Amino acid sequence: MATDSLHELMIDGLRDIYNAEQQLVEALPKMATAAADPGLANAFRSHLQETEGHVNRVAEALRALGETVSGKKCEAMEGLIEEGSELLKQKGKIPDAVLDAGLIAAAQKVEHYETATYGTLIAWARTMHHGEVTELLEQTLEEEEKANDMLSDLAEGGINEMANAGAM
Amino acid sequence: MATDSLHELMIDGLRDIYNAEQQLVEALPKMATAAADPGLANAFRSHLQETEGHVNRVAEALRALGETVSGKKCEAMEGLIEEGSELLKQKGKIPDAVLDAGLIAAAQKVEHYETATYGTLIAWARTMHHGEVTELLEQTLEEEEKANDMLSDLAEGGINEMANAGAM
Repeated sequence: MATDSLHELMIDGLRDIYNAEQQLVEALPKMATAAADPGLANAFRSHLQETEGHVNRVAEALRALGETVSGKKCEAMEGLIEEGSELLKQKGKIPDAVLDAGLIAAAQKVEHYETATYGTLIAWARTMHHGEVTELLEQTLEEEEKANDMLSDLAEGGINEMANAGAM
Repeated sequence: MATDSLHELMIDGLRDIYNAEQQLVEALPKMATAAADPGLANAFRSHLQETEGHVNRVAEALRALGETVSGKKCEAMEGLIEEGSELLKQKGKIPDAVLDAGLIAAAQKVEHYETATYGTLIAWARTMHHGEVTELLEQTLEEEEKANDMLSDLAEGGINEMANAGAM
């Protein structure tokens, strides 16, 4: 990593989130299949479609900055997804609503990771006056924040209560 | 991990963040030493004091729930701190402001991880009517959010501009 300028920090950050979003594209279908609550399964499926768009936007941002489109293994996202995978193994062994509550927790950590990353990348793009890149990343940030809010609504709108009641 | 109830998910989450906060107590002094901007160094040092308090609050929450105080290795925080450590190795080799901008990015990912975790734990504590635990974790969440805002202010209040100008 030779990050001796803000431009290079930015490219490094874009390649990290490019890989992170690709990892998420792999993980979301498994989370959608495991979720017992139909609203939660739908939320994961619709966020999968958005996430495919996020991968494309990061690629577009890299091209707009004159860089090749490639990813760089994002260890943080790997750790976050691993947490969710551990839970998936418990499907059928623990109450459905407890699994759903745990999946929401794991997914919200992922959303917050992405929110932090895009927030930083947007601030850097603005500093460097990269208007097109700023706009692309702002669209994604908005979708990540909405996805996170929807997960909170699902948790607080019944799933946590069901998990607490121990519903199968 | 036998997380077959919301209570157990909660204990698991508390032990994860207990370890994560302890890892952060180790990392923050190194970040404070490496930061070139005096305001950023101060922010890391004052957040270290808060973080020591967060460790104690999580311990208090575990005791209030009748559980033993112990941590569980938090892989996600390990990955996040590793990102910051990579940057620290570049101290002196890259412009100071670029290092500072990168340190802020790494620290904001950490803050967002904690925000997501405490947000979930608070929602679960409320569902289970654990008033004392809810209050303890809400105090910490507020401090994490303020720390994150302060980092944004430092980045956007001059550090990003200096990094872009390539100031040593």
